Amino acid sequence: MYKLYYFRGASPLAVHVLLEELGVDYSLEEISMPDGEHESPRYLAINPKGRLPALETPKGILTENLAILAYLAETHRKPDLFIEDPFEFAQAQALNSYFASTLHIAYAHGRRGKRWSDDPAVIEGMKVKVAENLKAGAELIENHLLRGPWAMGERYTFCDPYLYMAERWIDTAEIDLSGYPKLAAHKATMLERPAVKAALQKQEL
Amino acid sequence: MYKLYYFRGASPLAVHVLLEELGVDYSLEEISMPDGEHESPRYLAINPKGRLPALETPKGILTENLAILAYLAETHRKPDLFIEDPFEFAQAQALNSYFASTLHIAYAHGRRGKRWSDDPAVIEGMKVKVAENLKAGAELIENHLLRGPWAMGERYTFCDPYLYMAERWIDTAEIDLSGYPKLAAHKATMLERPAVKAALQKQEL
Repeated sequence: MYKLYYFRGASPLAVHVLLEELGVDYSLEEISMPDGEHESPRYLAINPKGRLPALETPKGILTENLAILAYLAETHRKPDLFIEDPFEFAQAQALNSYFASTLHIAYAHGRRGKRWSDDPAVIEGMKVKVAENLKAGAELIENHLLRGPWAMGERYTFCDPYLYMAERWIDTAEIDLSGYPKLAAHKATMLERPAVKAALQKQEL
Repeated sequence: MYKLYYFRGASPLAVHVLLEELGVDYSLEEISMPDGEHESPRYLAINPKGRLPALETPKGILTENLAILAYLAETHRKPDLFIEDPFEFAQAQALNSYFASTLHIAYAHGRRGKRWSDDPAVIEGMKVKVAENLKAGAELIENHLLRGPWAMGERYTFCDPYLYMAERWIDTAEIDLSGYPKLAAHKATMLERPAVKAALQKQEL
């Protein structure tokens, strides 16, 4: 039994999709970021970083999408969703690390600028380059990172829910995905998966 | 035989320290970030993300510190520097992901603001909160993340070179580490390790 702390539409959606793929028992608790619940004493006792997602597991709390995604796949679906070969696994973690530390950060400059400045003019100024950075990310993913049809090639792995999250961030820049056929096809195929439909429905997205 | 693409003092130092710990054959090539070599066609052919580090391995190129660190430890020093238990491994990856996607990003707003803005006033404005964010990071690491004496507890693992890198970022905020005894002890112990001394010497730091 797991419990996912999430906020509607934010990055924990990647973990939520994977929980649905795995068919494991889990519950959800929404932590309202607009209301500052992620910085409340109660949530900080769960995740002192004050960030989402956090996953309660039978062994304790796990944080950070890339760590949770690999852990769940290894624990429950080692033969298919996990990647056993160490070099391939490292490449998968490198891909997910790019989503976490570059693409998500590019996106966050449009929505969470107060992490990096208290000056309203600077926070506004940070928004200007967001679409350009997300477009550069889309090009990089299309031309170099997405092997196709799935993130890591011929089979669906724990990277695909995070790639789907990346596609949602890219969407906010209102980029025409028809210029990125591999990305567009991946997103369309993800939207047909029952696990994605279920997670979107449960988050009312 | 490995080849590490790095820039003096930048985040690839974590991988450099681990290569020294492992005692494996490796060579170095410096990619000058001030000269824009990380965005040159030659380097983009190695790592299309235009970021450091990149590691040439017998199986191909690997990028992203957290992916490289775990891979090298698993490949060469599984019994000690690696972490075999899946839950512990996930916690280690979560720690390294925090360094990559939160602490390094906080630091980068003081040095690499042009990633997120082309406006000199915004780039300057981003520098203001850097010390505050690094201090918050030091408190979080001291009070919640660093188990002590090593990052993950009683033994030195692939997380420790990255924690040392985090300590170097924190140092740029001129924070008095005496208020952070676990961090201060970790840094002092790292500086005594022959692997750290060798990497620092080879990078002329």
